[in-house]
Amino acid sequence: MSSTARTKATEQSAFSTKTFPVVEIFGPTIQGEGALAGQLTMFVRFGGCDFSCSWCDSSHAVLPEEVRKAAKMTAQQIVFDLLARADPHYMLWVTLSGGNPALHGLNFLVDQLHSFGFRVAVETQGSMYKPWLNKVDLITISPKPPSSGMVNTGLEEFTKHLQEDVYAQGRKPRVSLKVPIWDEADLDFARALHKRYPAIPFYLSVVTAMGGLHGDFDGGRIDDKLEVIARYGWLVDRVIGDQGFTDLAGVFPQLHVLLWGHDRGH
Amino acid sequence: MSSTARTKATEQSAFSTKTFPVVEIFGPTIQGEGALAGQLTMFVRFGGCDFSCSWCDSSHAVLPEEVRKAAKMTAQQIVFDLLARADPHYMLWVTLSGGNPALHGLNFLVDQLHSFGFRVAVETQGSMYKPWLNKVDLITISPKPPSSGMVNTGLEEFTKHLQEDVYAQGRKPRVSLKVPIWDEADLDFARALHKRYPAIPFYLSVVTAMGGLHGDFDGGRIDDKLEVIARYGWLVDRVIGDQGFTDLAGVFPQLHVLLWGHDRGH
Repeated sequence: MSSTARTKATEQSAFSTKTFPVVEIFGPTIQGEGALAGQLTMFVRFGGCDFSCSWCDSSHAVLPEEVRKAAKMTAQQIVFDLLARADPHYMLWVTLSGGNPALHGLNFLVDQLHSFGFRVAVETQGSMYKPWLNKVDLITISPKPPSSGMVNTGLEEFTKHLQEDVYAQGRKPRVSLKVPIWDEADLDFARALHKRYPAIPFYLSVVTAMGGLHGDFDGGRIDDKLEVIARYGWLVDRVIGDQGFTDLAGVFPQLHVLLWGHDRGH
Repeated sequence: MSSTARTKATEQSAFSTKTFPVVEIFGPTIQGEGALAGQLTMFVRFGGCDFSCSWCDSSHAVLPEEVRKAAKMTAQQIVFDLLARADPHYMLWVTLSGGNPALHGLNFLVDQLHSFGFRVAVETQGSMYKPWLNKVDLITISPKPPSSGMVNTGLEEFTKHLQEDVYAQGRKPRVSLKVPIWDEADLDFARALHKRYPAIPFYLSVVTAMGGLHGDFDGGRIDDKLEVIARYGWLVDRVIGDQGFTDLAGVFPQLHVLLWGHDRGH
């Protein structure tokens, strides 16, 4: 074995044995919001997040004591789990979510998923850039508005990197922005963001309730389903005729929450 | 005035004074299904239909005694009505619906809408082709499945014309298929259609209830909203893992019905 081949083999083996905290793999199910809303996808939810949003619906991927319980999986184990769930010939999308998946080095995983024929989507708040991001097929940047309690930094740099590296590699993932909306302050935040990035397809999602980390929202209850619809109606009424939202790409009620509440596994 | 100019002026005036049965103009509101789901649009609903589907949600545009009551409007009157509702600079889409809008000669209307900066979408069952169709920006062909009680003829010819004329004019409207689903027989119909036209983005919509022409579905009632969600859940479960539906472009619950039932004006 030449030394180059040996280095390659070592790298390959390093890639293969490296593990990631995977909180859950689920699907096929429906994507409830954003650019793939209404489409079927599987999800890989990675543990670990640089944020801690007040209405986070995935606390099990964020709270350190929860993330510590996550399975440690290699890229290959993740791919095999997905292949057991669906044939990439008819179930094309795999969505890498979190937490913030951009905390992890997923270059090898993305390559593996592509080699099996999957399309790869990523959901991230855009606070942290990784070069593997521009290998994927769709990036949904979901910056957190004031109601999250977070300050969304790094977005400027994130989009700049994305553009530069995209051009460098001659590959261009579809990029979209999606902002969760709870109140008027969030709408102001979204309007400013849309104005800053007019060329990026812009989606709004209604936050269903102060649930997740700090609440007890349960979409399985009838009242909560009606609450989702009512809040969706509010958001639609609010953006209709608002000249700050030019040519919105979509306003959605989080279809998955409508169907299944915040239950895990959907 | 030269004779050519006179001919042109006569044509122009013929265009301008020609009227169409308009059952309703409404919006801005949200598109509840298909390729523009979640996006804001205005609607022009034309009276008259070559079909009479069992669950039609627009009987006022179909039943002859209702259509006779429709306002007769010129293209210019339609455009002015729309302009009074929204500035095309921030509210780009106008959706021509029915009934079946392809019953009418809307060439001049489409030109006028474009000249003011609107994008034009059309919803039709694809039973009847008109050359103006390939001037628009988006065509949603919505062939009616068995539960409609209709037999959908003309689709083959419709798509063929569409392709030919599109190439002839060097303009290409986005084309998508959308099938309303009530039961298993409808799913069989949809599956066969998707197989026949694999390259056309394919959307499914759940039919909410046997309402419209022959029923009394009322989306304002709580039970009916929950029924929409339940039936949407059924459809999602049904298509997940169904290898007959490769890479669906979207499955939606008719978002407008969820919000407003079958009330007119939304």
